[in-house]
Amino acid sequence: MMENKFMIRTRNGKYIVRLVCIVLIVFGGSVRGRKLLSQTRPDPSSAAPFARWLVSESSWGILSTIADDLGGAPFGNVVSLSDGKPNEGKGIPYFYLTTLDPTSRYALKDHRSSLTISEYALGTCGKIDPENPTCAKITLNGKLSELDEKSEEAATARTALFAKHPEMPTWPKDHGFQVFKLDIEDIFMINYYGGPKPLTVEQYLHSEKDQLTSY
Amino acid sequence: MMENKFMIRTRNGKYIVRLVCIVLIVFGGSVRGRKLLSQTRPDPSSAAPFARWLVSESSWGILSTIADDLGGAPFGNVVSLSDGKPNEGKGIPYFYLTTLDPTSRYALKDHRSSLTISEYALGTCGKIDPENPTCAKITLNGKLSELDEKSEEAATARTALFAKHPEMPTWPKDHGFQVFKLDIEDIFMINYYGGPKPLTVEQYLHSEKDQLTSY
Repeated sequence: MMENKFMIRTRNGKYIVRLVCIVLIVFGGSVRGRKLLSQTRPDPSSAAPFARWLVSESSWGILSTIADDLGGAPFGNVVSLSDGKPNEGKGIPYFYLTTLDPTSRYALKDHRSSLTISEYALGTCGKIDPENPTCAKITLNGKLSELDEKSEEAATARTALFAKHPEMPTWPKDHGFQVFKLDIEDIFMINYYGGPKPLTVEQYLHSEKDQLTSY
Repeated sequence: MMENKFMIRTRNGKYIVRLVCIVLIVFGGSVRGRKLLSQTRPDPSSAAPFARWLVSESSWGILSTIADDLGGAPFGNVVSLSDGKPNEGKGIPYFYLTTLDPTSRYALKDHRSSLTISEYALGTCGKIDPENPTCAKITLNGKLSELDEKSEEAATARTALFAKHPEMPTWPKDHGFQVFKLDIEDIFMINYYGGPKPLTVEQYLHSEKDQLTSY
């Protein structure tokens, strides 16, 4: 057999193939700090399951609130999120916020808010442009409020957030992080050509939740 | 030398090391459709260069506007962006928007807007949580408006957008895409511990622009 400079001479080629495969798998899963997705991307025509998938798989998004100290301008901020404990997500986004950051301060004065998530951040859009309608995006509009920290919902949300964001329990106690919740009132989602998908909050919240909200 | 099951027996180990390196580089650059960054991450203490780097390297962000049909609630939307032609970026974000999408319709009624970008999307935060202050985030607040399509600035912005987003020129002509610009009035950036970095618009716009705005 002819050899060229790209061939590797070894007594046991299988080891090399295995090593490269392991490198690809490990590197592919951990590259840039991202994990592999836990659920298959639903068909874009299934609006509710698709929306639940996008929210469930996403670890972060942008929370927009009204900035009273900027003349009532809209103010977007990067936040981590969780929609429930592993395999028990309900589609309702929870956040762990401190009033050292403006978003929670704004929300406490004016609850109106939106959470925006791009599928591009998941890495499933390939080479498609982030603004291309087939690279999905969702905006959940509603009211952002702090949960009573002694409530059962806050305890569940904390468990969900800490499971998805293992760093959170180590964040400084004196920063006063609290659990916030977005009560969804309106959904805007584009995940294919043809404009926003018709999708009610009711349809979203009750969509195949047992199958599509694990992470 | 002792051997164990993790060692590879080969007549020329250097080739394997090279192969693995090539695999890492190629796979790391192309995984999930992202490109390698063109500029080195500036030191977080250099607020202005850091902010310019983050905006310049980012291909997308969230534009928040006021939704008049949602009672004046803030509405975040995923958009592609460019801050200038390759190696000639000026730090001013331009967008290619259609009024088929609500964001530009909202902006035409109320110019107040913010653009929010997360470093997490660049892949340079590693395993750090997206909400960790060392994983940078920036919010540029200002006025979002449509450029006169026959102006020189619109022509330059279109060239910049099309260079960064090669898909854009192929988007449907009948969708009426137009160039929009965010006139920055206020900057909020966290890129390390210790709260938002003091950074004026003036400092941002005149920061080492020749070195840090290529992509």
